[in-house]
Amino acid sequence: MNRPAVVALGGGHGLAASLRALRLVTDRITAVVTVADDGGSSGRLRREFDVLPPGDLRMALAALCDDGDWGTTWAGVLQHRFAGDGPLGGHALGNLLIVSLWEQLGDTVAGLDMVGRLLGARGRVLPMAAVPLSIEAQVAGLDPDDPQRVVLIRGQEHVAKTEGLVRSVALHPDEPPACSETIAAVKEADVVVLGPGSWFTSVMPHLLVPQLRRALVDTPARRVLTLNLQLDTSETFGLTAADHLRVLWRHAPELTFDAVIADPSIVLDEPALRAAAAALGADLVVAPVATPQRLAEHDTLRLAAAYRDIIG
Amino acid sequence: MNRPAVVALGGGHGLAASLRALRLVTDRITAVVTVADDGGSSGRLRREFDVLPPGDLRMALAALCDDGDWGTTWAGVLQHRFAGDGPLGGHALGNLLIVSLWEQLGDTVAGLDMVGRLLGARGRVLPMAAVPLSIEAQVAGLDPDDPQRVVLIRGQEHVAKTEGLVRSVALHPDEPPACSETIAAVKEADVVVLGPGSWFTSVMPHLLVPQLRRALVDTPARRVLTLNLQLDTSETFGLTAADHLRVLWRHAPELTFDAVIADPSIVLDEPALRAAAAALGADLVVAPVATPQRLAEHDTLRLAAAYRDIIG
Repeated sequence: MNRPAVVALGGGHGLAASLRALRLVTDRITAVVTVADDGGSSGRLRREFDVLPPGDLRMALAALCDDGDWGTTWAGVLQHRFAGDGPLGGHALGNLLIVSLWEQLGDTVAGLDMVGRLLGARGRVLPMAAVPLSIEAQVAGLDPDDPQRVVLIRGQEHVAKTEGLVRSVALHPDEPPACSETIAAVKEADVVVLGPGSWFTSVMPHLLVPQLRRALVDTPARRVLTLNLQLDTSETFGLTAADHLRVLWRHAPELTFDAVIADPSIVLDEPALRAAAAALGADLVVAPVATPQRLAEHDTLRLAAAYRDIIG
Repeated sequence: MNRPAVVALGGGHGLAASLRALRLVTDRITAVVTVADDGGSSGRLRREFDVLPPGDLRMALAALCDDGDWGTTWAGVLQHRFAGDGPLGGHALGNLLIVSLWEQLGDTVAGLDMVGRLLGARGRVLPMAAVPLSIEAQVAGLDPDDPQRVVLIRGQEHVAKTEGLVRSVALHPDEPPACSETIAAVKEADVVVLGPGSWFTSVMPHLLVPQLRRALVDTPARRVLTLNLQLDTSETFGLTAADHLRVLWRHAPELTFDAVIADPSIVLDEPALRAAAAALGADLVVAPVATPQRLAEHDTLRLAAAYRDIIG
């Protein structure tokens, strides 16, 4: 039996959680990763070398590593962070390795594939766009005299930590070139999974790369949306699960889904969430996918079970 | 037929040249590398993390890499240096990888073995001592009023670049612990090769680690000394080939050799050099081992031929 080809889109810890689950369901995985991060080690590397931010790509690769001794040891080394406040302090070794491979090979995708081979990765990790991006957000609630006033906040790190209410995000440059391997993977997928992840800074950006958005709309693949477990982050303060779906609809009204996965802990008003899902064309799948001890984290096995039940 | 077990001791480009030649003669190679470097990327890493200087270890590993696509690509990535004057500028990726493996695994030798496996290395790379070392040199000729006056110069980088005449070197700490795997390799070797390399800062230091020196004296292995092609460096200014042998004798009078390899270009007074070799117990082997185009570099194939003729 052929296992399904799955493309998972997102960034950061959310995408890594999704990938750890998907690798139990199929070995034909393509991770598509945001490239708008400007904080931490990735931000420092962007400023020093004007490269794609490697951090989320590194995390996705580590999540797909072979689970033998070799793969897990190298995944650990890639995730290793230098200690202290010195010139290297805070850098993840894998970020430095990826940037070196890019400079050495002169090819973004070939460099990521080399890391994948090192880790014995079950699948492939690709960038969402071919150039480094910035995120700009329309944010209300920052002016105490006029809470409705909307101001522009620039940079993923600032947007993710804003104390205001994010209304929408945009990319700069606003029509970035996609990565051709990414577009091909979406077009040839059996299943596309969007989320979980920071809603405005890791999930929405995928819908703002024109070629990628078109591929997501046009693909014959089944489309699955995985909602977050923690709705109440800085950037999504006050938004219900149904609001998350409305945000998505506002960013890409023409994009429909087949299924929306929600953990029971975020389903406070099931009829409203079911209606919001239906507005996207999707069935709501309420399934326990949280880790029992830490409700904010997806449980690899439970999320894998939910994916398998949907993917079939 | 069993191939001979060879231990090659040195540091920097000289050791790497020796290893590239030896790997054509045997696949049972142990490289033993100085750990007193305090310049460049290695020096910065010592100051930031108080670790063994990884640079010469990295070069030795790259020299032993498998010559297929995988090994040579990864060797190139390990040798990659970040550009510019930023916080990462000048660092070799392989140095950062080795330090990460040490921190991740908590074991110097296991970390080096992991890099060796990554490269498909023909052999093993070990440090000369278990702790980072400093070099101190007695240097004359620096006081214009009293050229005989001897002053103490500290640090490998300063010693290597001194404008004075180096008389002898010492290590700090002066009785450093050896690496047990290194001692075992020397004791079990069929052949031990010392040099080529910076005479005072990469070759002599091996004789100043008490356990290593004793192992070199006691080993039943044949002992081969490979002289440099460029005698007239800052640290060896004015020394003939025979003087190089006398320097070695002064640092370890009880150590004998079976053969001394010298390129014809450095043999200006053959009877004197033959006598100096005989004082070490060694036959002088005059053999063309230089690269035709660049007389200061050892030619891999010619040096391999010389090693094979001696090792048998």
